[in-house]
Amino acid sequence: MPDRLYLYDTTLRDGQQTQGVQFSTPEKIRIAQALDALGLDHIEGGWPGANPTDSAFFDAAPETRATMTAFGMTKRAGRSAENDDVLAAVLNANTPAVCLVGKTHDFHVTEALGITLDENLDNIRASISHCVAQGREALFDAEHLFDGYKANPDYALACLRAARDAGARWIVLCDTNGGTLPDDIGRITAEVIAAGIPGDRLGIHTHNDTETAVAGALAAIMAGARQIQGTLNGLGERCGNANLTTLIPTLLLKEPYASRFETGITRDGLRGLTRISRMLDDILNRVPMRQAPYVGASAFAHKAGLHASAIVKNPATYEHIDPAMVGNARIIPMSNQAGQSNLRQRLSDMGLDVPRDHPALPAILEEIKAREDQGYSYDTAQASFELLARRALGDMPRFFEVKRYKVTVERRKNKYDRMVSLSEAVVVVKIGEDKMLSVSESMDEAGTDRGPVNALAKALAKDLGPYQRYIDDIRLVDFKVRITQGGTEAVTRVIIDSEDGTGRRWSTVGVSANIVDASFEALIDAVMWKLVRDGAPAT
Amino acid sequence: MPDRLYLYDTTLRDGQQTQGVQFSTPEKIRIAQALDALGLDHIEGGWPGANPTDSAFFDAAPETRATMTAFGMTKRAGRSAENDDVLAAVLNANTPAVCLVGKTHDFHVTEALGITLDENLDNIRASISHCVAQGREALFDAEHLFDGYKANPDYALACLRAARDAGARWIVLCDTNGGTLPDDIGRITAEVIAAGIPGDRLGIHTHNDTETAVAGALAAIMAGARQIQGTLNGLGERCGNANLTTLIPTLLLKEPYASRFETGITRDGLRGLTRISRMLDDILNRVPMRQAPYVGASAFAHKAGLHASAIVKNPATYEHIDPAMVGNARIIPMSNQAGQSNLRQRLSDMGLDVPRDHPALPAILEEIKAREDQGYSYDTAQASFELLARRALGDMPRFFEVKRYKVTVERRKNKYDRMVSLSEAVVVVKIGEDKMLSVSESMDEAGTDRGPVNALAKALAKDLGPYQRYIDDIRLVDFKVRITQGGTEAVTRVIIDSEDGTGRRWSTVGVSANIVDASFEALIDAVMWKLVRDGAPAT
Repeated sequence: MPDRLYLYDTTLRDGQQTQGVQFSTPEKIRIAQALDALGLDHIEGGWPGANPTDSAFFDAAPETRATMTAFGMTKRAGRSAENDDVLAAVLNANTPAVCLVGKTHDFHVTEALGITLDENLDNIRASISHCVAQGREALFDAEHLFDGYKANPDYALACLRAARDAGARWIVLCDTNGGTLPDDIGRITAEVIAAGIPGDRLGIHTHNDTETAVAGALAAIMAGARQIQGTLNGLGERCGNANLTTLIPTLLLKEPYASRFETGITRDGLRGLTRISRMLDDILNRVPMRQAPYVGASAFAHKAGLHASAIVKNPATYEHIDPAMVGNARIIPMSNQAGQSNLRQRLSDMGLDVPRDHPALPAILEEIKAREDQGYSYDTAQASFELLARRALGDMPRFFEVKRYKVTVERRKNKYDRMVSLSEAVVVVKIGEDKMLSVSESMDEAGTDRGPVNALAKALAKDLGPYQRYIDDIRLVDFKVRITQGGTEAVTRVIIDSEDGTGRRWSTVGVSANIVDASFEALIDAVMWKLVRDGAPAT
Repeated sequence: MPDRLYLYDTTLRDGQQTQGVQFSTPEKIRIAQALDALGLDHIEGGWPGANPTDSAFFDAAPETRATMTAFGMTKRAGRSAENDDVLAAVLNANTPAVCLVGKTHDFHVTEALGITLDENLDNIRASISHCVAQGREALFDAEHLFDGYKANPDYALACLRAARDAGARWIVLCDTNGGTLPDDIGRITAEVIAAGIPGDRLGIHTHNDTETAVAGALAAIMAGARQIQGTLNGLGERCGNANLTTLIPTLLLKEPYASRFETGITRDGLRGLTRISRMLDDILNRVPMRQAPYVGASAFAHKAGLHASAIVKNPATYEHIDPAMVGNARIIPMSNQAGQSNLRQRLSDMGLDVPRDHPALPAILEEIKAREDQGYSYDTAQASFELLARRALGDMPRFFEVKRYKVTVERRKNKYDRMVSLSEAVVVVKIGEDKMLSVSESMDEAGTDRGPVNALAKALAKDLGPYQRYIDDIRLVDFKVRITQGGTEAVTRVIIDSEDGTGRRWSTVGVSANIVDASFEALIDAVMWKLVRDGAPAT
C-alpha cells in the first residue's frame, strides 16, 4: 500500500512575496481554481488582515475540494489568543484550516520578538488550541526550524511538542532563510520524528537559496515527513519556494516516489501541468522560463546534433520521461548547430515533408545562420521560421506587398492644457495590380493613444481586400523587445505572439535598428503565416 | 587537511547547447578569461571540428592558468584512433587536456551506435590511450552512466575500468538525460568507488531536468567524487547543467563543504561571482534571473513585512550568508506590501534620511501603489523610484521641461530602389524662460536608421544648454519592453538601463499605451536622475 503524501500550495501567500509579484483578487481566484483542478490538498490563500487583496480574496474565495487555508502568526505575548486582533482577523476569514507561523529558534524569540522562551511556547500552545477550539484544522509553520534545531535542539523540539500537544494537525518544518542543505534536512527531520513528532503529522517548507529546495523537500519525505509545501513555478520570497511544478511530476513519475507514495493528483491533472504553469506566467506577464524542468519550452529541446539524431530514432535515448505526460512537447530547435536531420524533422512537424536530398535544405540552414548573425532568433519564432522555409522551398504563395508606410507620433498639450499623444499611420499595399492606401489613427474607443505599432496594424488591417476576412480575428497577445547584437552593432529584436479566434497562437520575429520597423516586420509575418495556414488564395 | 575539489567548467561547450545561445569567438574568449580569473581548474572550450566557432576559439584561445580542454567523442568502430578524423580534429586543437564522451549504457551501444559491447570497450580504451600517448591529460565523460549502471552494472563498470586502465586522469559520471535523483547519484557513485574506480579520479556531471542538478553534484561529492562539472548560470542542454554559480558559494561558504574541502577559488574570486554572472547575461542579452541563488537581484530581497523589519535590526535573522561575500547586495523592495520601515531603509540607501514621522512617507507609499496599478514597476527601476520620492519630499530641483515632441518613421524605396527607413524627431524643451527647439534624424554614422527613440534621444541631447555636459556620457545599455496590465487595459512598460562614463548603471521606467511615449518617459527619468546625482544646478 503506497503512503499518502499531501501537497500544500502557498503560491497565493509565499508566492506573492516574489519581487515584482502582486496578485489582484480576481487573479487569486483564477489561480485557486486551477490549483484545485490540479488536485492539491491545501490552498493557502493569503494573510487576511495583513493586506487588503488577501482579505478580499477570502471574502470571494471559490468553492474548492482542496482545503482552503488562511495564513497568520501565533498570538503576541501579553494578551490572550482570544484578544489578539491579528489572530482574530485570520480566523474571521472562516477557512476550514488555519496555518500559523511561530518561532522555534531561540535567537529569534529573544532577538526579533524580545520575549522569553517560555512566553513563546505559551503563544504557540494558546494560538493552536484557540484554532482547534473553533473547529479549524490547525497547522503550525515552525519558522527557522533547522537553524533553531542546530542552535538549541531541546528548545526547537519543545516548540514542536507544544504545537503537537495543542492539537496541530500538521507541524511544518520551515527552512525560512533557505540555507539548509538536503542532507541536514533529511537528518534533522529523522531526528524530529525520533523525538516524538509523528511523520504523518510533519510537513516540509523549503526555499531555493542554495538551489536545493526540491531536493530538500524530497529528503524530508524520505526521512518520513508527509506534507510538502511549495509554489507553482517556484515563486516565493528571495529565490523562491520549493517548486511544486517540478515536485509533482517527480513524485508521480520517478522512483522510488512513484511506487511508494500516492497524492491527490491524477494522471489527467498531470497532463495539465504545463498549461497551468504557462497560465500563471500569463497572469504575471512573465516570460515563461524556457529551462524550467518538465514544463519549460526547452525541457525537451534537443539541440546537440548527436542527441537530436538519436532522439529521432528513439526518444528514450535522451529523455527521462515522455513530455506528453506533463502536457509538454519535444522540440528540435533550429540553430546553426543543428544539422539537416533536425531541419527535416522540424519541417515535417509543420506538415512540410521534404526528401532527404532536397537542395533547399542546405540553403535554409545557411539562411538561418546568416539571419541569426543579424540578430534574428528562430528558436521561439516558429511561424517566421516556417515562412522562411516555405520561401526557400518555393511553397509560399504571393499574397500582398507593402510598398511604403509612414507613422507619426506627436505629444503636445491638448485644448484642455493636458499633455496627450497621438499616432497616425499611412500604409500603401499592393495586391496583384491594385495599390491601396490606408490611413489610421492609434486612438482606441476609450480615447487612448495605442502607439505607432497599433496605428500601423490598424492601417494595414483596414483594407486587405480579399484577405480581410482571414485577418479580422488576429489579436496581438504579447510583444517582446530585446536589444541584441546584429553583426557589429546593436539592433532591436521584436517577437510578437499572435492569437486568432480558434485559440491558435504563433510567434514571429522582426529585427532592425528601428523598433517600429522591427515590429512591422514581425507583424507582416504574423499576417502572412495566418494566410498560409488558412489556405488563402494567392494573387 | 581539507580535500581538494576540482571545478570543471563547460559553459563554452554544454552551455552552448542552451536553446537560443550561440557564442561568437570573441565572446568565448571573454568568458574563458573571466572563468580563469575566477579560479576554475578546467575550461572546456568546445568541440573542435564540430562547429566553426569552436575551432576558431581554440586557434585564438587565451593563455590561462586553468587547464584548457577540448571536447570530443571516442573513436568510431572499424577504424583506429589514429585514423579517426573526428578525434584527430579534437587533438589538433592542441589543448593540454582532452575530454572524450563515450557510451557506458548497453542500450545506447547497441541501439544508438549499432555496434557490439566489446567494440565500444575497445573504442574507449584505444581513444584514451591515444590521447595519453600524445602527452595529453585525458578525461572520459561516461555518458548515461547512471541509467547504464541501473540497466547493466557489470558493463557500465567495465567501461569505466577500460578508461581507468587506459590512463584517464578523470572519469566523469554523467547523468546525461538529467533523470537521476540525488539519492541514486550518491549511492551509485559510492558503488563505483567500491568497485575500484578511485574517488580522486571521479567527476560528476549532472543536468537539471528534475531541478536537482546541484543536489546531485553535492551527493556525488559526499560519496567521494572529487571533480564537479557545471556551467555558469546553469546554462546547458534542455534544463541546463549543474549551476557552478550556485555550487561555488555553497562549497566555499556552507558546511560540511567549507571545512572539508578546498577549491581553486579564493574569497576575492568569490566576491566577483555576481559580476561574472551578470557579464554572461550581458553577453547573451538575457535578462538576469532575479531569483537566481546567491547572485540574483532578488536573492537578498526581503519583501515580507515581518522579514524586512527584522532584517533592519539584524541581517542574520533572514539571511543564510552575507550577500557581500558573493558580491551581491541586500534589497528592501518597494511594493504595496511594504511598510514605512522598508521605505525609510530604501530612502536611506539612496542617501535620503527621512525621519520616522515625515508626512511624505504615506504619500509616497500611496503614489507607488497607484502607479503600480497603472503598470509601473519600481522593484527594478530604482532611479525612477528615487525621482518619485524626491518629488514627494520636495527635494527635486527643477531642471528643464519638455513642452512637446513629434517623431516620424517612414519606410519607402530609396533612389536605388531599396526599401529603407528613416526616423526624424523634433523636441521642444523649456529651460528657465528659454524655449529650445531641436531636430534630429535617427541615422547613425554607418547610415543605419536607429529608430524613433534614438531620434528623440538625439534631439533631446542636442541642446540641453547648461545641462549638456552632464548628459554627454549617458549611454543606453538595455531596453526592455513588456505588455502589461494598467488598470483595465493593456499598456506598454519600458525599462531603460543607462550607464555613464564612470560605469554607474541605473534603471528607469515609463508606462503608456504608446511605446514611443513610454520610452520617452523612461529616457527623461534617466537624464533627470543623472542631473540630480551629479548635483546639476536648478534653473
